Amino acid sequence: MRATTIHAARDIRLSDVPDPRIDKPTQAIVKVVAGCVCGSDLWPYRGENDITAGDTIGHEAVGVIEEVGAEVRSFAPGDFVVIPFCHADNTCPHCRFGMHAACDNLGFTASGQAEYTLVHEAEGSLVKTDGMPDPGMIPSLLALSDVMSTGWHAAVSGGVQKGGTAVVVGDGAVGLCGVLAASHMGAERVIAMSRHAPRQEIARTFGATDIVEERGKEGAERIFELTDGVGADAVLECVGTDQAMKTALRVARPGARVGFVGVPHGIELPVRAMFQRNVGLGGGMAPVRAYLPHLLDLVLDGAIDPGPVFDLTLPLDQVDEAYRAMDERRAVKVLLQP
Amino acid sequence: MRATTIHAARDIRLSDVPDPRIDKPTQAIVKVVAGCVCGSDLWPYRGENDITAGDTIGHEAVGVIEEVGAEVRSFAPGDFVVIPFCHADNTCPHCRFGMHAACDNLGFTASGQAEYTLVHEAEGSLVKTDGMPDPGMIPSLLALSDVMSTGWHAAVSGGVQKGGTAVVVGDGAVGLCGVLAASHMGAERVIAMSRHAPRQEIARTFGATDIVEERGKEGAERIFELTDGVGADAVLECVGTDQAMKTALRVARPGARVGFVGVPHGIELPVRAMFQRNVGLGGGMAPVRAYLPHLLDLVLDGAIDPGPVFDLTLPLDQVDEAYRAMDERRAVKVLLQP
Repeated sequence: MRATTIHAARDIRLSDVPDPRIDKPTQAIVKVVAGCVCGSDLWPYRGENDITAGDTIGHEAVGVIEEVGAEVRSFAPGDFVVIPFCHADNTCPHCRFGMHAACDNLGFTASGQAEYTLVHEAEGSLVKTDGMPDPGMIPSLLALSDVMSTGWHAAVSGGVQKGGTAVVVGDGAVGLCGVLAASHMGAERVIAMSRHAPRQEIARTFGATDIVEERGKEGAERIFELTDGVGADAVLECVGTDQAMKTALRVARPGARVGFVGVPHGIELPVRAMFQRNVGLGGGMAPVRAYLPHLLDLVLDGAIDPGPVFDLTLPLDQVDEAYRAMDERRAVKVLLQP
Repeated sequence: MRATTIHAARDIRLSDVPDPRIDKPTQAIVKVVAGCVCGSDLWPYRGENDITAGDTIGHEAVGVIEEVGAEVRSFAPGDFVVIPFCHADNTCPHCRFGMHAACDNLGFTASGQAEYTLVHEAEGSLVKTDGMPDPGMIPSLLALSDVMSTGWHAAVSGGVQKGGTAVVVGDGAVGLCGVLAASHMGAERVIAMSRHAPRQEIARTFGATDIVEERGKEGAERIFELTDGVGADAVLECVGTDQAMKTALRVARPGARVGFVGVPHGIELPVRAMFQRNVGLGGGMAPVRAYLPHLLDLVLDGAIDPGPVFDLTLPLDQVDEAYRAMDERRAVKVLLQP
């Protein structure tokens, strides 16, 4: 099949690789209808993570079941499914605790930017729609495989409450989905930190009530101005850098929590300040499957529409351009059609 | 009046100092019935915090109102009161959010090991009993001014749930109160990490179902054995050292939180591991007043009895011996009678 592979920093190719094959009865193969590039794919693309040359890349996809293993009973060829980027059996103690990201049988989508992809724990991981969704729904459904679920995890981890004030640090696709999550959860005020006009526009569409363009200390000061000197009831840290985390911790009001979902790069946590201000921190890799049934309902009911985070759609054979567009911030997030 | 003063590391004296005087209408003066030594008093005692020679020390006390300022309407001379170590107006945005430890008018008890002490925000801070309590209740009431409320804050911050498993790191008085809090909140299993027989006994009295004597990696392994490899649903970190925090974060199950109340000394938080395991952290200085009315009811109803953390009672003029006994771990916590 054709699949995206990475060979070195900024060396992304569409290659011919062997088709995925089922070698365990819990697996399924999905023919990809839509995949996309994740902000976290840019870490190896930029040479900031280790790379094994020739590895496939891409972990977000929706598609149609092609084949299932013998133990997969709830899904059959032809079903349209959303694939959580982290696969989970949905039965182990961690899954029963709602923390599918720590499943005893954790697996990952390894070829989301490809024609086919393998799901390790299909029965526990996948959710399906009734029949084929309208093509216009595909972006919103695709967003559930990672970016929307991750934004939701930031909001859950940050403890967003109805009627409260939420600050979202980061205007990437995850941050924008964090705005949508906080807004849907009933935060009365959602402050998005963003200095890019097109992203500000999406943030407003997603429910941001205020935009703060400043960063660092100036950004924090602006947020204290907006909150009568109090700070935010909940903060979503959706970047993963030290500056973003410091800002997030600074603008959280005493007693509030920062929910963090940006893979940490170079972060040093100021434990003494956290203690002195009673500001907590929680988060990590999103337990996508825990949220997926609810989020799927919300998307199908039209209660949330995260689709607009995809502001560019390209055919799979232009995957190299997809990475470039995101790297150069010409696109928020690129949807790929095999 | 006679008050405890600190002059250098291990130089604790009972000195004659000026009586406290009311200089703001929100203040009150309390004649101390009982005070005590806090684990955090040992940091300056051991020379690990800066000292201003001659400063009074001690921040935990109960007593009888001697005099009130013009704006103090709910308390009158003769009332028996519990004094939260941190004073709060109970009306500012932080207090209304339940985070009295960040009150806009925050103050502290500065002479708890003395004959009299000044309360800055008396109206918002104090709670009183109906009449003079039975002398046998004094230790339990005194515990509410800090140690029990701080253990409670660890349990709240760690997210202790009914039916869950809680691990308490630290067998000082705060850790023991954390055991009592977790047990009272309905944790089915409360694992106390302690290697000192007398403290283990108090822990069991307070509701510990298991004791782990090992520390560090061995202690963590033992906890995984006790929890079928899963880890704890909630962890209370009641020490403040790097080793204690590392253990606490390690034994928390994915999706759980560590509640920390030990003033951090030399802690480096492993942000990457926290992210990878979805283990959160929250806590800080306890918002005592937020918990005080409820905890007072629990003590008066006999639902909790934190009094046994005081395993030594001395007259105030033996305060030097009180510090030595705690420093040498001959006593868990020493109650002082002026």
